[in-house]
Amino acid sequence: MKGLYFDGKLKFNDNLPTPLPEKGEALIKVVKSGICRTDIEIAAGYMGFRGIPGHEFVGIIEDAPDKNSIGDRVVGQINCGCNDCNECRNDSQNHCKNRTVLGILNRNGSFAEYLTLPVENLHHVPDSVTDEEALFAEPLAAAFRVIEQVNVLAGEVLVLGDGKIGILIAQIIGFLKGDVTLCGKHPEKLKLVADCNVSPILLDELEKGKLYPVVVDATGNPNGLGLALAHTKAKGTIIMKTTIAENAKATDAIDLNRVVIDEITIKGSRCGPFEHALTLLGEKAIPVTRLIQERLPLEKGVEAFEIASKPGALKVVLS
Amino acid sequence: MKGLYFDGKLKFNDNLPTPLPEKGEALIKVVKSGICRTDIEIAAGYMGFRGIPGHEFVGIIEDAPDKNSIGDRVVGQINCGCNDCNECRNDSQNHCKNRTVLGILNRNGSFAEYLTLPVENLHHVPDSVTDEEALFAEPLAAAFRVIEQVNVLAGEVLVLGDGKIGILIAQIIGFLKGDVTLCGKHPEKLKLVADCNVSPILLDELEKGKLYPVVVDATGNPNGLGLALAHTKAKGTIIMKTTIAENAKATDAIDLNRVVIDEITIKGSRCGPFEHALTLLGEKAIPVTRLIQERLPLEKGVEAFEIASKPGALKVVLS
Repeated sequence: MKGLYFDGKLKFNDNLPTPLPEKGEALIKVVKSGICRTDIEIAAGYMGFRGIPGHEFVGIIEDAPDKNSIGDRVVGQINCGCNDCNECRNDSQNHCKNRTVLGILNRNGSFAEYLTLPVENLHHVPDSVTDEEALFAEPLAAAFRVIEQVNVLAGEVLVLGDGKIGILIAQIIGFLKGDVTLCGKHPEKLKLVADCNVSPILLDELEKGKLYPVVVDATGNPNGLGLALAHTKAKGTIIMKTTIAENAKATDAIDLNRVVIDEITIKGSRCGPFEHALTLLGEKAIPVTRLIQERLPLEKGVEAFEIASKPGALKVVLS
Repeated sequence: MKGLYFDGKLKFNDNLPTPLPEKGEALIKVVKSGICRTDIEIAAGYMGFRGIPGHEFVGIIEDAPDKNSIGDRVVGQINCGCNDCNECRNDSQNHCKNRTVLGILNRNGSFAEYLTLPVENLHHVPDSVTDEEALFAEPLAAAFRVIEQVNVLAGEVLVLGDGKIGILIAQIIGFLKGDVTLCGKHPEKLKLVADCNVSPILLDELEKGKLYPVVVDATGNPNGLGLALAHTKAKGTIIMKTTIAENAKATDAIDLNRVVIDEITIKGSRCGPFEHALTLLGEKAIPVTRLIQERLPLEKGVEAFEIASKPGALKVVLS
């Protein structure tokens, strides 16, 4: 089959083996797949991944243990637990120590014609959701995770970073909670969501000393946490969405005294609930397709990665 | 009056002005005062403090608006709010932006014959609590803060750092929750609390990869957070108790990816509830006076700081 393969360098390959589903897994024909910031980081060496990257997809079940499901249109949760540890028994496959993660950890991903996933990971896509909208189920679920982790009110949240995940987080908070501030470097991206209860502000114009009860670091930059700390109120909460390739460590940005004295809470945040994301997409609550910048065929995947890597790039879709 | 004064260098002075209580404040004759790690940091430049340091004390009310209270034995909360801001109106004087803090921020402290504090900050010391035990009300309250911030169970907590605050945290968890692990570098200090449901372990013997749901960083070292991260389970919580003088920033120790991927929560932790600390002291639940290493007169305060600054030092008491 055709696909992108990363072995230290990302290449297109039209002779990859079609995956064979293991017990309990479905074979899925990928219809569309989106390039995420994490994919760019993976192509820069993050996680030491080798294989087919990609984890945002919509596809059609080609084969599965339940033959009635063949032909169904699905999206899929990316974490596959061992189903045999304490985490899995507590319905927390996302944190299973033996997990594989689609296109990220020990499991080939979606930048190919086919992928496999356990059937329990799959979610049927409602008819009201288009293929391109469905592509956003995974990042929208990750954005939704923020409001699972911290109780936020209108006007209380500053989202740092106008990348795709930052925009989706601002959109979800804007829709479900009310006014939210989105801070970034790209006026044209900030404008994209001005009709979603999102108050845009350029980084240069963010008032020094202006503090928020909740700050989301979606900068994708190791210094994002320091910036977040500088804008978080005492007893406030910082939600960290930023993961970064290699030497991805905060350098001079973490003022530990501030965290202690002002009793600030910092929470890491990763994957979220697909069911809520699909509901929001089905209700057309979050306009997501405006985040798509380019559509390219799988054969042009390497070029697509180059486009998606440029500063300020929005979603690039492969099909 | 006699006292210690820090103006870039700590000196004993027998001609300091006796403080005059402002409206709503009491004048307190200091009976005993303890040297805390924070005092050592202040004498190293932390907080840019100038004045009389010291914030752990027990004293006698010498004058107060309520003349009936004169002669009462008291301890006192160290944060003095403006009583006019949102934080103060929400009973959170600890986080008032205009606060003064006894011996730490814009308010002279307890290493002197007299101090002043708002009467609302004072707590009467039960007769069953000795002066030396009462000295521990402040640090014990700060230790209690940990279990206000995170729900812990027996066997779940690793406390890093066998300094005074680390030991008190382990003792409180040991008494109220059950078995707790205390990790430090000083065998003799770890042994001090082996009868308090505290399982001691030397830092060198802490098993690499051994993970706990809750880790308390009480190391007093900027690299403590990195060590804590290395021993925190996915979805676990780190409580940070460490504040450090100057350039007090984590350097290469913070693996932001780990925080995000494993959705770890980091919570800063400062002052706690005196009433609970006094109750525990009144019930003789926490044996604290064994943490006293030396007792010196105020005149020998500079020497006392030198003793308290030595690695592995326990509580040094001035009177």
